[in-house]
Amino acid sequence: MSDDWLDSIKWNADGLVAAIAQEAGSGQVLMLAWMNRESLARTVELGEAVYWSRSRGRLWHKGETSGHVQKVLDLRLDCDGDALLLTVEQQGGIACHTGRHRCFYRQLKDRRWEAVEPVLRDPESIYG
Amino acid sequence: MSDDWLDSIKWNADGLVAAIAQEAGSGQVLMLAWMNRESLARTVELGEAVYWSRSRGRLWHKGETSGHVQKVLDLRLDCDGDALLLTVEQQGGIACHTGRHRCFYRQLKDRRWEAVEPVLRDPESIYG
Repeated sequence: MSDDWLDSIKWNADGLVAAIAQEAGSGQVLMLAWMNRESLARTVELGEAVYWSRSRGRLWHKGETSGHVQKVLDLRLDCDGDALLLTVEQQGGIACHTGRHRCFYRQLKDRRWEAVEPVLRDPESIYG
Repeated sequence: MSDDWLDSIKWNADGLVAAIAQEAGSGQVLMLAWMNRESLARTVELGEAVYWSRSRGRLWHKGETSGHVQKVLDLRLDCDGDALLLTVEQQGGIACHTGRHRCFYRQLKDRRWEAVEPVLRDPESIYG
């Protein structure tokens, strides 16, 4: 199988591309993460989001510990070729490591960031 | 006015943060761009998206040439502090410089990127 589709991507200096995960149904943007060539290829093979963890320096099959896997229904590339948009089904309804539904839980109000989404599950109970 | 809200952001090595623009109403993710400290402050002052153009190396008030301004209704920050989510009203209904509604117009089908959204307006007629 040709790898042209991977060559179309404008990988950054670290070999990464930004990947936005949007929830099917609700349309909510859950998180922004990063993928390298291998993680994107794995994502497509598996049908589940596999990111590149910049902090851990390794492939990160989202949900590998928590069970909060993201099933990928659709994959888009932007005009510049440097951003991906994944439409996902979020297993367990929790995308954020803080135990919230999504990572974008801080809202700007009067030039202050206010947490506006509840913690649905104690992170301790997710990650042990 | 305190700048604490700007200090909460984890700017990258280039002093930038990723900014996702999502359309109010449709919920469609329109584009991913970048902001520096000044562009984010301007965005909040103005109530319209002002990005940092990496290619042009200057502030980019989205729509300054095309009239396709993005009115910002809501601004969110993620758990890591390195990604922003803007809820916007897209003036003119065109976010992409290719004349399409949004930048994420290429869909992966059988390991090929296929353009699945129509050009609504000739870029020549937008940018002259």
